[in-house]
Amino acid sequence: MSDAKEFRDLRPPEEAVETIAGLDIDPGTETVALEDARGRVLAERVDAALDVPGFDRASMDGYAVRARDTFGADESDPAVLDLVGAVHAGETPDVEVGDGECAEISTGAVVPRGADAVVMVERTQVAPRASQEGERVDVKTALAPGDNVMVAGADVAAGERALGPGTRLTPREIGLLSALGVAEVPVRAKPTVGIVSTGDELVRPGDELDSSRGQIHDVNSYTIATAVAEAGGDPVLYPHAGDDYDEMERQLRDAAEECDLVVSSGSTSASAVDVIYRVIEERGDLLLHGVAVKPGKPMLVGELGGSAYVGLPGYPVSALTIFSTFVAPKIRDAAGLPEPRTATVTGSMATRERYTEGRTRLMPVGLVEDESGETLVYPVDKGSGATTSLVEADGIVRVDADTDYLDAGEPVEVQLFSPDVRAPTVLGVGEDDPLLSRVLDRVRAPRYLSFGSREGARRLRNGIPDFAVASGPIDCGGEEVASWTREWGLVTSSGGPESLADLVDGDYRFVNRGTGSGLRGSFDATLSALADERGESRGALADEIEGYEFTVKAHASPARKVAEGRADAGLGLRATAEELGLDFVSLGEEPVTVYANPDRVEKRGVRDLETALGDAESLADSLPGYDA
Amino acid sequence: MSDAKEFRDLRPPEEAVETIAGLDIDPGTETVALEDARGRVLAERVDAALDVPGFDRASMDGYAVRARDTFGADESDPAVLDLVGAVHAGETPDVEVGDGECAEISTGAVVPRGADAVVMVERTQVAPRASQEGERVDVKTALAPGDNVMVAGADVAAGERALGPGTRLTPREIGLLSALGVAEVPVRAKPTVGIVSTGDELVRPGDELDSSRGQIHDVNSYTIATAVAEAGGDPVLYPHAGDDYDEMERQLRDAAEECDLVVSSGSTSASAVDVIYRVIEERGDLLLHGVAVKPGKPMLVGELGGSAYVGLPGYPVSALTIFSTFVAPKIRDAAGLPEPRTATVTGSMATRERYTEGRTRLMPVGLVEDESGETLVYPVDKGSGATTSLVEADGIVRVDADTDYLDAGEPVEVQLFSPDVRAPTVLGVGEDDPLLSRVLDRVRAPRYLSFGSREGARRLRNGIPDFAVASGPIDCGGEEVASWTREWGLVTSSGGPESLADLVDGDYRFVNRGTGSGLRGSFDATLSALADERGESRGALADEIEGYEFTVKAHASPARKVAEGRADAGLGLRATAEELGLDFVSLGEEPVTVYANPDRVEKRGVRDLETALGDAESLADSLPGYDA
Repeated sequence: MSDAKEFRDLRPPEEAVETIAGLDIDPGTETVALEDARGRVLAERVDAALDVPGFDRASMDGYAVRARDTFGADESDPAVLDLVGAVHAGETPDVEVGDGECAEISTGAVVPRGADAVVMVERTQVAPRASQEGERVDVKTALAPGDNVMVAGADVAAGERALGPGTRLTPREIGLLSALGVAEVPVRAKPTVGIVSTGDELVRPGDELDSSRGQIHDVNSYTIATAVAEAGGDPVLYPHAGDDYDEMERQLRDAAEECDLVVSSGSTSASAVDVIYRVIEERGDLLLHGVAVKPGKPMLVGELGGSAYVGLPGYPVSALTIFSTFVAPKIRDAAGLPEPRTATVTGSMATRERYTEGRTRLMPVGLVEDESGETLVYPVDKGSGATTSLVEADGIVRVDADTDYLDAGEPVEVQLFSPDVRAPTVLGVGEDDPLLSRVLDRVRAPRYLSFGSREGARRLRNGIPDFAVASGPIDCGGEEVASWTREWGLVTSSGGPESLADLVDGDYRFVNRGTGSGLRGSFDATLSALADERGESRGALADEIEGYEFTVKAHASPARKVAEGRADAGLGLRATAEELGLDFVSLGEEPVTVYANPDRVEKRGVRDLETALGDAESLADSLPGYDA
Repeated sequence: MSDAKEFRDLRPPEEAVETIAGLDIDPGTETVALEDARGRVLAERVDAALDVPGFDRASMDGYAVRARDTFGADESDPAVLDLVGAVHAGETPDVEVGDGECAEISTGAVVPRGADAVVMVERTQVAPRASQEGERVDVKTALAPGDNVMVAGADVAAGERALGPGTRLTPREIGLLSALGVAEVPVRAKPTVGIVSTGDELVRPGDELDSSRGQIHDVNSYTIATAVAEAGGDPVLYPHAGDDYDEMERQLRDAAEECDLVVSSGSTSASAVDVIYRVIEERGDLLLHGVAVKPGKPMLVGELGGSAYVGLPGYPVSALTIFSTFVAPKIRDAAGLPEPRTATVTGSMATRERYTEGRTRLMPVGLVEDESGETLVYPVDKGSGATTSLVEADGIVRVDADTDYLDAGEPVEVQLFSPDVRAPTVLGVGEDDPLLSRVLDRVRAPRYLSFGSREGARRLRNGIPDFAVASGPIDCGGEEVASWTREWGLVTSSGGPESLADLVDGDYRFVNRGTGSGLRGSFDATLSALADERGESRGALADEIEGYEFTVKAHASPARKVAEGRADAGLGLRATAEELGLDFVSLGEEPVTVYANPDRVEKRGVRDLETALGDAESLADSLPGYDA
């Protein structure tokens, strides 16, 4: 908690935009092969260095003629010409066309000397010559000089302006460049963006985690690297410096030397932040330190040894939010790319959202489409820092500092986290269930938030999701569209409890599910029944179970604790027990029901979900304990 | 002209769509590193293999406490706890928190054994202990178990569904995958598309052309390869087979073996087409042969040795049109990619367009925005086969067979040639001029068609372009926004004519400009003046000039013919003569004027052009013979 971490002088977001606009991250130009030029931006004007075509070119299959020989010719009175040869594409003509003569010619071939027009084959007739050897051609139409001939340079003339600087190279520009014989193109280089990872606890994906030391995988480096590439930059991931601050300092300096821009994301480690400050202050300029924007408060902007530096917040959604809002536009600009047209969508607020913090808020939101295809926008991730919010949030709504609330129905513009982000085809919330998961695999681009039966029902009542999934009876105002039963009970290791009474009376470590889950509801109801039998309270029995309060998130989580040897029994499903090779004490069957939002039954995604649910029966066959 | 080239049984376009839909080009799946996964599509569901976080994680800087020790605490009556140690991120806690104790903790660190909540540092005060060594912490708020702690698996629980098959991987999904420790991802492979180049006359860009043999650069292979990559496929360019048909057959077979789909574009060579037929018929199936669509008539669809085959027309715009309409959707589908949202735009016809051919037409169109930002659509490239149409056409409007005309103002949907295609910021037509070209370099994404002064004026009168450029006086109904003069005359080689009279009277080879160009107008006027002096007709003088009828396209083209030694004099500019190191006979100065479309003067692109034109004076300084 050094002084440096206190942001006493928050600057308005407009100033952050200006400061970043003033940074120099111009990558210059480079030359790439035509094959690699797709999507790149021309650095210079390209003028044609040659004529296209380079010769007078037949644009029809037919006969090369002297136009004046055909004057007045028509169907009834054809011009009769001697056939003196043939020219095919790719050949140098070995024939010259004189008065009263013609030569067979293919599309694309060089019009032979003497000829100035081509008659299409359909307007001719070939016959043997009457009096001599060889053939004659009857031309049944009159031609003007130049007919069906593309003269040299008529398409593109040497010296002509072909493409201007700043042109984005799509297939058609690549086509024109290849016509001009351009095999290498001068393009704007991609700004290189060094991503420096700070934080002792970060481990690369693929490397082993030591959770006892509090290690986690590095999320921001990969998220930001991908976003850099999407904005047209060239991301360079620097290796983790671990907890060696000299090493971290060296890497910051290296990155500043090697890259146009250096980005790091908020370290949880105060001493890492101190290193960044020290390096920037010693070797560069700290231009901006803290921005009056939620969640950008700890944002840093500076210059560092000829490079630019931006420090992002630490939470994944916050880091991506600040990157998208302030940094991506700068990278696109340096790369010469326009803002993608799909970078924003317009929608209307699905709920009323209050906001009274008095600074600009960049509010992460999810999208869902209503039955008529209108986009509804709802806030997600109120600062939880959860990685899962990354895929629940589709983009950001900017809420100005003087806005106290956004009303339901109010139109808002959403800055998407990627131009490739789209609203899910169908949005569901509710119980975690393996059969449902298989059904969802058969639906294109759904979004399902397994927040439990209770939360699913609550959200469906609020009208946001398209469907909710709940186990057990629940009031959610939805239309039942599918239902199945699943066998639940205790997933146990050998030597674990053999019944619910055994779990209560014996000495076992148990793992429970949270109170929002349907499975927990079923368990508590069964425990109540046992309590009634014994004339005791459910609470008293629960107190007897070690770990009754130890709840985990997903349906398979308790079983996994058992499989890891960290518990003797867990609340779970027969299907999970069999999958993990564990024992199972059956305590009952519970229904799992899919409820559709009554306002969305005609929505395409909901109908696609219903179609997929039609296969539930066959999917249930492969899941032990399931009956659809 | 083999039988095979006659398409007697044209199939409706819907059948082509169906036939192509039935082809199997499924590329299967592959595994890519997370760093390379951007934009790819998940092939399988990814379930979490581990808990995130893998431990109970502090989500604030502060103190780890037992919540029950803080019950009832507030500002006036803080809970007083003994500080027994500290835990930082990335460390294994070496402390346990007992009753009445706490430990300093950093965001991200492991909550030590015994503690079940974290109090944020702002709600505490540290002071020396009154009676013993060490420090105490005053906690000024009450906490519940779990406050500011993210328990193991609370973000993602092991076994939980994380991402479904078919998910497009954008930065946020890459972030979630890295949180899960996934370093390699199973994705849909990209369908490989072999591009086989037929036609003896085709030469790769970068290789030398032999124009006398009618060689041209291969445009379609590069255009289509780029379009394949844009659609999510992996293009493979096969080497030119030249005119060796055995070689061509071998390459077709190789391509069919190595690729999911083979594409060739209409050969101009009948025998090449015959080879394709023979190979497909011997080793595969010709499924469709000719489609009732303009320009897709000669389209082929077949199967070839386990691969699919599509033959495209030969003209560049036609090849790209048929590829975009019929083939790209199939590639996207196989790659698991949705149609880009920017693939189409809606606009209204700028002119009335008649069409009475009775088959579906895929009409290439250009786009221009009016002052209010509405998109106007106008037809381009009426089958000219010109490469330049590639960059004039932005996309295609489908006109059904039973539509006789599209009215001006009629709304149409345009299928763009690339999701990256946009309407130009400003559209101009007219005289080719080097100063104008430099001005355009300073405008973002303009489009300028150097079709000559006369055509520029004609189009401006029709209201389509934003501006026209003409030399000499011309009636175009536009508002003059800038003007400069350029010195023109004869660009000559040494030993060339020394005056206009010398050109007429001497024995020189001359190169002229077309009658649509302003330069030609000036030349003819000057020639008329000389004729008047001599009491002759202009035509008589023109007849004396060898090459008077030999016209070329761009302002620099005649001069280039002189530089190449193919002429002694060419109509041109002093600026061009000096650039090419040639002699110059001045014949006068002519004004070049930029006229804005009066309905577009407020359009942003027009204003940007005017700003750039403001620099014309300084640009003119570096162009000999210019005065702005």
